[in-house]
Amino acid sequence: MAPRADDRSTDPRVIRTREDVPRAAFRILVDEGADAVTHSRVAQVAGYSKATLYAHWPTRLDLVRATLDLMTDIRHAQVVGESRADLIGQTIGFGAMIREQKIDRALGAMAALIAAAPELAELRDRVAAEGERVMRSVLDDVADGDEREAAALMLNGAVLYAAMLHGSPPSDDMVATIVDVVLRGLGTSRN
Amino acid sequence: MAPRADDRSTDPRVIRTREDVPRAAFRILVDEGADAVTHSRVAQVAGYSKATLYAHWPTRLDLVRATLDLMTDIRHAQVVGESRADLIGQTIGFGAMIREQKIDRALGAMAALIAAAPELAELRDRVAAEGERVMRSVLDDVADGDEREAAALMLNGAVLYAAMLHGSPPSDDMVATIVDVVLRGLGTSRN
Repeated sequence: MAPRADDRSTDPRVIRTREDVPRAAFRILVDEGADAVTHSRVAQVAGYSKATLYAHWPTRLDLVRATLDLMTDIRHAQVVGESRADLIGQTIGFGAMIREQKIDRALGAMAALIAAAPELAELRDRVAAEGERVMRSVLDDVADGDEREAAALMLNGAVLYAAMLHGSPPSDDMVATIVDVVLRGLGTSRN
Repeated sequence: MAPRADDRSTDPRVIRTREDVPRAAFRILVDEGADAVTHSRVAQVAGYSKATLYAHWPTRLDLVRATLDLMTDIRHAQVVGESRADLIGQTIGFGAMIREQKIDRALGAMAALIAAAPELAELRDRVAAEGERVMRSVLDDVADGDEREAAALMLNGAVLYAAMLHGSPPSDDMVATIVDVVLRGLGTSRN
C-alpha cells in the first residue's frame, strides 16, 4: 500500500491526528470489539469529525489497518545477555502487555477482522514478527531451526493461552518454570 | 444456575430445539463474532421463531451461555498409554479442533463476551478444564506440580498462538518437536 502524501506530513496538527485517532480506535477495538471500529464511532471517541477521519483513512479497511498497526509498536524488555534471564524477561514482558493493554483481546479482534478481510493477514504477520523479534534473537544462542521455532511458540503461547483460558497471564514464578523446562529441553543447547 | 424444567424434557421437538439452536449460534459466534449472537439473528439462521428462542433462553446471557457451553463438548484423541504419543495426539487434536471448528475464533469471541459479562468466566473455566483434562492425565505420568502446569500451558499455548499469530496451528512435525522439548525438559520425569 503506497503511503498517502500526508503520511509524511510535518504539520503538527496532521501528525497529532494520525497519532490520536488510531490510539482511540485501538481502545475501541479492545473494549467494544472489532465491529465497533467504524469512522463514526472512532470519530466520536477520538473527538474528531467524521470528515477528518475519512480524509486520512478513506475506507474502513484503512482505519482498521492503522488501528492494528499500533500492535507492531512494541516496547521489548531490555536484553542483558544472559539467556535464562532474557527469556524470562521477554516472556513476562508479553504477559505485562496483555495485562496492561489487553493485547489478548486485540489479537482476538484481529483474528475476526482477518476472517472478514484476508489481506490483513500481512499485518498479523508483521505483529508476530515484531512481537517475537527480541525473543528469537535471545533463542538464537540456545537453539537452532525447528527447536528455536518450537521454543518461541511455547514461550509466547503459554502466556497467550493462560490469559485467554485461565483469565490472566502466568505468574512470574510460573514463567521461570516454563523457561527452565524449555532450556533443559533444548537438545541443541549451546550454553 | 438451576436448570429450567425443559432442560430435561423428553419431548423430541424440545430436545431437537435445544440442540439445533446452540449449534447455529456457535457458527454465528465463529463466523460473525460475539455481537451477532442475538435472539433475532440466531432465530433467523437456525430456522426457529424468536418466540421459541425466548421460551428456551429468556435472556441474551442464557443464549450466549448455551452457545459457549458447546465448547465443553470435546472429542479428545484416544489415549494409548505411551506419554510421547499421547501428548502428540492431544496437542495435534487441539490443532485439529481449531482448524475444523475455528475454536480460536470462538475463544476470542468468548474473551469479548466475558469482558461484557464477567459471570461467564465460570464457563471459560469449564472449557479450559475439559479441554485440558486428558492432556493433564497424560502429563501426570511425567511431571508434578508447577512443571505439569507449565507443560500444559506450553503444549496448548503453542497451538493457540500459532493459530492466532501465524495463521494456522503447528504442523504435526512441529508438534512432535514441541513435545520432545517438553519431555526432555521436565526435571521430575518419571518415565
